Amino acid sequence: MTDAFLPVLPALLIEEQVKLALLEDLGRAGDITTQATIGRGRTARARLNAREEGILAGLDFARTAFRLIDPALRFETTLHDGERLHPGMDVAIISGPAQGLLSAERVALNFLMHLTGIATYTARFAAEIAHTSARIACTRKTLPGLRAAEKYAVRVGGGSSHRFGLDDAILIKDNHIAVAGGVGPAIRSARAFAGHLVKIEVEVTTLDELHEALAAGPDVILLDNMGPDHLARAVEINRDRSGLSPDAYPGNRQRIQLEASGNVSLKTVRAIAETGVDYISTSKITMAAPTLDLGLDVVVE
Amino acid sequence: MTDAFLPVLPALLIEEQVKLALLEDLGRAGDITTQATIGRGRTARARLNAREEGILAGLDFARTAFRLIDPALRFETTLHDGERLHPGMDVAIISGPAQGLLSAERVALNFLMHLTGIATYTARFAAEIAHTSARIACTRKTLPGLRAAEKYAVRVGGGSSHRFGLDDAILIKDNHIAVAGGVGPAIRSARAFAGHLVKIEVEVTTLDELHEALAAGPDVILLDNMGPDHLARAVEINRDRSGLSPDAYPGNRQRIQLEASGNVSLKTVRAIAETGVDYISTSKITMAAPTLDLGLDVVVE
Amino acid sequence: MTDAFLPVLPALLIEEQVKLALLEDLGRAGDITTQATIGRGRTARARLNAREEGILAGLDFARTAFRLIDPALRFETTLHDGERLHPGMDVAIISGPAQGLLSAERVALNFLMHLTGIATYTARFAAEIAHTSARIACTRKTLPGLRAAEKYAVRVGGGSSHRFGLDDAILIKDNHIAVAGGVGPAIRSARAFAGHLVKIEVEVTTLDELHEALAAGPDVILLDNMGPDHLARAVEINRDRSGLSPDAYPGNRQRIQLEASGNVSLKTVRAIAETGVDYISTSKITMAAPTLDLGLDVVVE
Amino acid sequence: MTDAFLPVLPALLIEEQVKLALLEDLGRAGDITTQATIGRGRTARARLNAREEGILAGLDFARTAFRLIDPALRFETTLHDGERLHPGMDVAIISGPAQGLLSAERVALNFLMHLTGIATYTARFAAEIAHTSARIACTRKTLPGLRAAEKYAVRVGGGSSHRFGLDDAILIKDNHIAVAGGVGPAIRSARAFAGHLVKIEVEVTTLDELHEALAAGPDVILLDNMGPDHLARAVEINRDRSGLSPDAYPGNRQRIQLEASGNVSLKTVRAIAETGVDYISTSKITMAAPTLDLGLDVVVE
Amino acid sequence: MTDAFLPVLPALLIEEQVKLALLEDLGRAGDITTQATIGRGRTARARLNAREEGILAGLDFARTAFRLIDPALRFETTLHDGERLHPGMDVAIISGPAQGLLSAERVALNFLMHLTGIATYTARFAAEIAHTSARIACTRKTLPGLRAAEKYAVRVGGGSSHRFGLDDAILIKDNHIAVAGGVGPAIRSARAFAGHLVKIEVEVTTLDELHEALAAGPDVILLDNMGPDHLARAVEINRDRSGLSPDAYPGNRQRIQLEASGNVSLKTVRAIAETGVDYISTSKITMAAPTLDLGLDVVVE
Amino acid sequence: MTDAFLPVLPALLIEEQVKLALLEDLGRAGDITTQATIGRGRTARARLNAREEGILAGLDFARTAFRLIDPALRFETTLHDGERLHPGMDVAIISGPAQGLLSAERVALNFLMHLTGIATYTARFAAEIAHTSARIACTRKTLPGLRAAEKYAVRVGGGSSHRFGLDDAILIKDNHIAVAGGVGPAIRSARAFAGHLVKIEVEVTTLDELHEALAAGPDVILLDNMGPDHLARAVEINRDRSGLSPDAYPGNRQRIQLEASGNVSLKTVRAIAETGVDYISTSKITMAAPTLDLGLDVVVE
Repeated sequence: MTDAFLPVLPALLIEEQVKLALLEDLGRAGDITTQATIGRGRTARARLNAREEGILAGLDFARTAFRLIDPALRFETTLHDGERLHPGMDVAIISGPAQGLLSAERVALNFLMHLTGIATYTARFAAEIAHTSARIACTRKTLPGLRAAEKYAVRVGGGSSHRFGLDDAILIKDNHIAVAGGVGPAIRSARAFAGHLVKIEVEVTTLDELHEALAAGPDVILLDNMGPDHLARAVEINRDRSGLSPDAYPGNRQRIQLEASGNVSLKTVRAIAETGVDYISTSKITMAAPTLDLGLDVVVE
Repeated sequence: MTDAFLPVLPALLIEEQVKLALLEDLGRAGDITTQATIGRGRTARARLNAREEGILAGLDFARTAFRLIDPALRFETTLHDGERLHPGMDVAIISGPAQGLLSAERVALNFLMHLTGIATYTARFAAEIAHTSARIACTRKTLPGLRAAEKYAVRVGGGSSHRFGLDDAILIKDNHIAVAGGVGPAIRSARAFAGHLVKIEVEVTTLDELHEALAAGPDVILLDNMGPDHLARAVEINRDRSGLSPDAYPGNRQRIQLEASGNVSLKTVRAIAETGVDYISTSKITMAAPTLDLGLDVVVE
Repeated sequence: MTDAFLPVLPALLIEEQVKLALLEDLGRAGDITTQATIGRGRTARARLNAREEGILAGLDFARTAFRLIDPALRFETTLHDGERLHPGMDVAIISGPAQGLLSAERVALNFLMHLTGIATYTARFAAEIAHTSARIACTRKTLPGLRAAEKYAVRVGGGSSHRFGLDDAILIKDNHIAVAGGVGPAIRSARAFAGHLVKIEVEVTTLDELHEALAAGPDVILLDNMGPDHLARAVEINRDRSGLSPDAYPGNRQRIQLEASGNVSLKTVRAIAETGVDYISTSKITMAAPTLDLGLDVVVE
Repeated sequence: MTDAFLPVLPALLIEEQVKLALLEDLGRAGDITTQATIGRGRTARARLNAREEGILAGLDFARTAFRLIDPALRFETTLHDGERLHPGMDVAIISGPAQGLLSAERVALNFLMHLTGIATYTARFAAEIAHTSARIACTRKTLPGLRAAEKYAVRVGGGSSHRFGLDDAILIKDNHIAVAGGVGPAIRSARAFAGHLVKIEVEVTTLDELHEALAAGPDVILLDNMGPDHLARAVEINRDRSGLSPDAYPGNRQRIQLEASGNVSLKTVRAIAETGVDYISTSKITMAAPTLDLGLDVVVE
Repeated sequence: MTDAFLPVLPALLIEEQVKLALLEDLGRAGDITTQATIGRGRTARARLNAREEGILAGLDFARTAFRLIDPALRFETTLHDGERLHPGMDVAIISGPAQGLLSAERVALNFLMHLTGIATYTARFAAEIAHTSARIACTRKTLPGLRAAEKYAVRVGGGSSHRFGLDDAILIKDNHIAVAGGVGPAIRSARAFAGHLVKIEVEVTTLDELHEALAAGPDVILLDNMGPDHLARAVEINRDRSGLSPDAYPGNRQRIQLEASGNVSLKTVRAIAETGVDYISTSKITMAAPTLDLGLDVVVE
Repeated sequence: MTDAFLPVLPALLIEEQVKLALLEDLGRAGDITTQATIGRGRTARARLNAREEGILAGLDFARTAFRLIDPALRFETTLHDGERLHPGMDVAIISGPAQGLLSAERVALNFLMHLTGIATYTARFAAEIAHTSARIACTRKTLPGLRAAEKYAVRVGGGSSHRFGLDDAILIKDNHIAVAGGVGPAIRSARAFAGHLVKIEVEVTTLDELHEALAAGPDVILLDNMGPDHLARAVEINRDRSGLSPDAYPGNRQRIQLEASGNVSLKTVRAIAETGVDYISTSKITMAAPTLDLGLDVVVE
């Protein structure tokens, strides 16, 4: 993905989210520590810097936090989301009224550390499978209220998004299949219901179900909790059915896509990707990404 | 803490937060998968169960998610937040309209897995230091918008809260001290500003600063990034100054309290606690708590 | 679509929208006419009935309006959205406190008349093309703030939805093509960007562009402002390319779908559908649907 | 109405409404088409132009949509709401970042086309009756959430507003009369209740009721569903009662005003106006106004 | 005003307002005092009683506060807003979970004491002028965010409302007159602009202006800061102009109404009313009404 | 308190509050008086001035009101909150578009008059006790939705805040004591529950309870409804227990603080303060502060 085509989170969404976080932190009386110890006229200058190796994500959240607290604060940076951070590297220089600078610090960092952590962890998964045609994808296991931001960070880290919510794609799981009376009827029912811009994915756990699914023709098949052997066999079956040559198959985006899930970790992801599946989805990259440490070194002027 | 005096999160707050999360997931068209595959009249029954050992937290969030999606759903349980979970143990039985049950599942689990994860991880820290008079406490490093819920989970896990925001206590750090012209002037400035129901804490990094802080008389002193030896020495200094006997000192809540922070982990926390500090604060219990796995097994009727 | 698989709008969305509309109407002092002329203890009973032929849509909006104004109001009906209305037919019987009943009337009817109008008008388009494999679909030309409700009504009327917003599918238009450097590059750029559950549609206006688009392999091709002859030719080209027999082609949902737009009306839609396109999209069914007249006859008790 | 005294919709209201509409369209991931196909650094220039004859309304809504998406977008125009549009005429030139320009387009046009449609349709009614002293007025039959905007467009089109909601005037209808025990008692009850800045209108359907109403002295009498003959007779009765000469009566705003409603259309409105009534109210101008076509021609730079 | 025709504040408005107030009080951790000292299972019973003489207003606010905190709380009363309170009199009995009962107490009382204070103070003004045909009215000098509630309380106390906001009536003051070029032109400009359900009031400060205003025919004339003599003379002028007999004039609601403002107090209001003006408006009844003391006596069970 | 360390209300809070108040006033159609009488192009200039002696509070609320209505309005002032006002003194000069200037006037003044009233009244209490070491403090008896603003005004006036809400300190009252089984057990229970940054206050009404409280060691003891003699005796008891000399005791902030409440007025406050208590809390300064008169003199240009 070239720099120009990075994902963009709408400024309106960022502003709403940052405002909520600031109000949560400011409470009813605001930052009483700075009020008590920092004179109103004081200015300061701070270096927002990385303390670990990683992939930057969430810069606009930080910028917005400082701006919403005090528009007089300047936030200067030459970086963009997606760039690699090294320990000690400056992410931004913030300068202006000292009270506001210190009041916005925690909220800015909370966003930045969480989102950069997700982008960084996603990038590690992506690196493990870079030699394959598979891509790592997140799920709907995200923290309440933070989904858009977290999914954005996954994309910054080189991952791909799954559904954004219950309404933008159909994902038929075991419970739906049970009610609908089988994989085939469930897919046909979904096809009759869905608009032409809605993709349909079905979850299967055995090769028998895979055959049934392929016959009904969904857009994507989720192979849940299969080991590498079964996954490789599933890829073979799909390839045979697609009529594509072994060379033309990988990364082809017009045939039915295969997605693997279950037991995905930094240790297992390479083997899963090498089976030839197209997507590997895991909640790990959103739910288990370690926070990346960033800090603010203030120089009071 | 006996059962009766557990923390309580206001139902109004829980409802606002769950509503936001549901709207985030439902999007503009709702759960199109259940609409496409589950008939309107169908009912189902599901077991919400634990898949790991842990301390339950967030039950009311889950209950509220199902109720807000469809008031006809029944949510039955005999458990309360704070109880110990074992793998396979039922947390609740939910029954009623199948569409609503499946639509609310993810949001309910997202809250429950995150909060139970925090309570469980906090309890592990608490267990490590149970033989001391120290308590583990969280910080303001929480995820944007989720602070009240996360701090509640910490308390359920046996931890203690630090400030809830910028407005409910004064915490004087290095930057404030630099502006105010030293530890003593900063504390005195804070004392002049703060109301009588606001506590004042000051951060020190050396024993010299500790002496200066003790002289100015804050309510709490935060010993940042000191090793166990320095912490033990700090405790000794505070005890001498308090005039309390070595027996009367631990856990005494009327003298100046000492809080340790920096380099806190499950490996280090015991040694830190055994120095005699009163509180050990760490962002680990909110920011690094592993999600606890819970699942929903649906029996379509 | 059988009754069980009708679209469902989340109750949470309906409630938010109705609350907003009621607050808009109640203003700061509430319904001063009923306060001035209807005693507090009075009860009433009303027949909510249809005054035209049509397809009912929005019943839950009406029900919610009465409930939010006064939970003591009973709203009784045996109908569901999607059922056919005849002039004079009772849609619901509402009874209870007279003040609330009269105060909620206008908001309930405003929703019901607008949504029923859309469902009814959509159904007329659908009826015109019922003998073909084409389906009528709405667009993003909807009234601000009412998109979810309007798209729901379209589906109730037998239409299909297009994108719900800018984020749930990619629709590449002339401007995007111009920047990307052609139909092919634009589609490939989109494919590289989009997650595997996002469909990609591209707009073409000539058969040359159609060939270019087919070669790049989007999910859907929008044939904009082509006359029936060109549309028929486009269908032929797509069929040839798909390798499907003339019998297997219509309604097949696995090949590239063709969507026609431009100059769609009740007069032209049949001819367009008979060209063999899969979808016909038009803003007419949301933006030009005549309001369907419904009324409330109150019997004060 | 001279240019200076046009109605003004508060910027705060416009901004809230446009923000809601933008969030509705952007969803959780924003405009993925422009993200995928338009590079971040690209700029563009667009002509927002009229495709039909009409009366411009809602310019500030469009301007605000572009500004809220990206403050770097320039929106240049020499027009104001209320000016006459001709096909092909430029309404505004927008220039700046291409992504934002394209992302805001649909919401800007949705507002503009709807409001301009209402203003234009209202102006057609107004033109029909310009030779009389009657004015055309809208009702509370407006789309939920859009009342302020729609009523504003009516006023821009030369129409007049009726009540803005349930709280700013008293309108006594048949149901209220039934409870209150007649037209006279209802009006007297309203008079006792209402503040001195609240007008009282009463609906009558026969000349007998008109006499009763005139005796009780409301501010306005609504003559519902009367044919031109009855309306003319009603005007005569009112004139006699007012003691004004036939010359002084028309347009006099101090006597009781007469409003006609029911069966109002472009075909009937002239005859109704010529009976001498003061106001003609109809939901047609809000609920049946055809959307006016406007478009955005983008020149990517 | 009989009991049945009391003003009613929409439940939706009350709920929004009480929810805001509760969230303001609960903060992020809820009522930590009851959590720390009152066991979860404890129940209690409380008498909400009056400690002063007054007119009850705001009962639904109190009821809603207890319900929103815990729906299990019972709120029993036989009183309604508008009834007279005596010291020691029970207003309601509340019973149920002790934690919730104590947590809601302050918010319930804050509303009740403020609104009852306003109703009571208004009633004192009303009593002073009960022998005249004048009524006391409030203004737009209300506390931000509380206007609907405060104006409701004024009406409960027997007062009348003025404008609810900038949009429901036209009040032309000196500044508007200066721009418009005089009282007459201003009124005529307003008449041309305003809809037929909007009243027009003009402020005059001299008898010359009064004559000018009468000639232009507004609905109401505000006599600002005139002494009783001038007011009496203004009434005389208006009566002469109206052609009504001295007997028919007072309280007649069809002629131009006269409103007095400025220097209104409990001491002056009687003399002002006896001049024959129709309305006396003052910010005193909203801005200077003493809070009425009510308390909650809890009996823990 | 020097100028630099004045309390600061977060701009985000002020903006939310002012926006709410403006929307409340503007309603659905905005300021129809200025629309009807003031041309769009007109500009004006106004002096916002004091009409009484007092202490300015709320300047940012006023500034924000004008800015939110029209960013083109200039608000110029050399004053800050906390400065002394004299009758006739200019608080600010506002200039720019006349419509906006007049539309924002009332909301700006409503905030300013209320908050300045509170600051001024608080300052009168503070002046009465300036020769003692006591400070005047407000309570949670504030107007719903305005707590942050009112408490800010108290601080501007030289007063001190009490709890901001139920969650930032523990205040144990008679009901809590009754359940907990006495003053001692209640305090101990609170101590076990509360985090180390939460202060604990207990209310006592007799000297016996005071002894019991002192033994349990809360941070603050509230002496409710005691006369000066009892208060003086309570101070003596606390001093003896503290071991501080009569000279070192007053204003010492490390021992247990004593707060007096009940029967506090401008007449009694001096005698109460002279008993040696540290804080005197009263709802008078928020609930009974007379509005301070300010006005806006407009010069239309």
